[in-house]
Amino acid sequence: MVFQLDSRENPKVKHFIRLLNNGKYREEQGLFAIEGARLCMDALQSGIPIAELFYTEEAAKKYNTIVADLGQKALKTYQISEGIAKKMGDTTHPQGVFCTCKTLDKPDDLVTIGTDSRILAMENIQDPANLGAMLRTAEAVGIKGVICSAGCCDMYHPKVLRASMGAVFRLSVRLEENLPKMLRGLTGMGVLTMAAVPDASACPVTSLRFDRSAVAVIGNEGNGLTKEAIEACEVRVTIPMKGRAESLNASMAAGILMWEMLR
Amino acid sequence: MVFQLDSRENPKVKHFIRLLNNGKYREEQGLFAIEGARLCMDALQSGIPIAELFYTEEAAKKYNTIVADLGQKALKTYQISEGIAKKMGDTTHPQGVFCTCKTLDKPDDLVTIGTDSRILAMENIQDPANLGAMLRTAEAVGIKGVICSAGCCDMYHPKVLRASMGAVFRLSVRLEENLPKMLRGLTGMGVLTMAAVPDASACPVTSLRFDRSAVAVIGNEGNGLTKEAIEACEVRVTIPMKGRAESLNASMAAGILMWEMLR
Repeated sequence: MVFQLDSRENPKVKHFIRLLNNGKYREEQGLFAIEGARLCMDALQSGIPIAELFYTEEAAKKYNTIVADLGQKALKTYQISEGIAKKMGDTTHPQGVFCTCKTLDKPDDLVTIGTDSRILAMENIQDPANLGAMLRTAEAVGIKGVICSAGCCDMYHPKVLRASMGAVFRLSVRLEENLPKMLRGLTGMGVLTMAAVPDASACPVTSLRFDRSAVAVIGNEGNGLTKEAIEACEVRVTIPMKGRAESLNASMAAGILMWEMLR
Repeated sequence: MVFQLDSRENPKVKHFIRLLNNGKYREEQGLFAIEGARLCMDALQSGIPIAELFYTEEAAKKYNTIVADLGQKALKTYQISEGIAKKMGDTTHPQGVFCTCKTLDKPDDLVTIGTDSRILAMENIQDPANLGAMLRTAEAVGIKGVICSAGCCDMYHPKVLRASMGAVFRLSVRLEENLPKMLRGLTGMGVLTMAAVPDASACPVTSLRFDRSAVAVIGNEGNGLTKEAIEACEVRVTIPMKGRAESLNASMAAGILMWEMLR
């Protein structure tokens, strides 16, 4: 059954916009909002529970199959006007397909550490575009599990979802309140924990052998890793630079470390 | 001699803002505009000719040495109010240091192809943040020469300059009207020219030996390389993906290819 929404002031529309813009509201509701045919389809195909679907008449024609598939799974479906779509859209030219989805219980999504695990841990990554880019790269190079410290930006932030190209939906992501403690535990278990530092005296990543499980730990864009996180790791690792020091941005450094772990 | 500028309508202020925002005006004037203590100092230290310096009283205190060094080299120096600085600033919190600089004659900045050259070529890169990120990474990993096709965004765009962290000033950059022709020439000279394609049937970068000069060629964010550019190259190269195909963004793909050429 498709409901018709005609007013921009409709509580459903307001609810969607609040989910898009407000991290605290997302957490309270256990929901997040996504926009665009591709991202909504990615969510569906990754088994993310779809709570509500909103679509325009135009979108129903253009993304025929996608809207139909989403409509089958969504608990509630609303048809909206172009005007409402413009209001709901976070992008300049919204495609007219929007969903609210249930957040996965990622905090309990324990990463199983086998002998050949390759994990990315991120501490206090602030920029949603960076976090999203790292998740996208992680998935591409074959990382299965990602650890986010509690100080990272919200992984359901629209910019994270967009930059990650849906990788958030498919990766095993663990939110960790106490990252140094977790790293100490992993180090104790014999996992190769590597603190990424822009320091020529640290161990070059090219000299490491990845013959056991390994975790690459990347710190905040401006300040790098905390002292506690570095001390909790087995080694300090660096990417040998031929140009000026500290010249790789956080997501590029993370990309090269992940690539090296898996190449 | 320091001139005092008091009006936001002053032609010098308008000139600066136009240089910041208008690529055609930059080209006509042979000048570009930069903002921020670090970037202005980078330009100076890289030997970029400083035409004008603008600074606030606050900045003269906070960035004492930098403002003094810039003032020594600038042809003209203007002290400006905080109000004017806010108007000139492209960022939310301008530091109060601004310069106009002469563009380098980059089109004639020929890359000398030796037997161990490692070059990045970019075709039709549209996003200034991507172009800037690639230049930053190129410098960090030790690339010396970069080729930009004429269809790339302007390398003096403020977002390119900022994302490149000044790498534009230090790299040898060649603007190329006819990239496929240039690539055919390089291929003919025995340079390993590699067209980056997201295609599992292409040659994995990890199976190539970099025992001669090499050029990695990266295409547009959405459309990839043109057919002409691909055909002009010796090999089609790809980054083996373990996750979903086409999941690396252009700057990350460029980063990994450059890293592999130089690791």
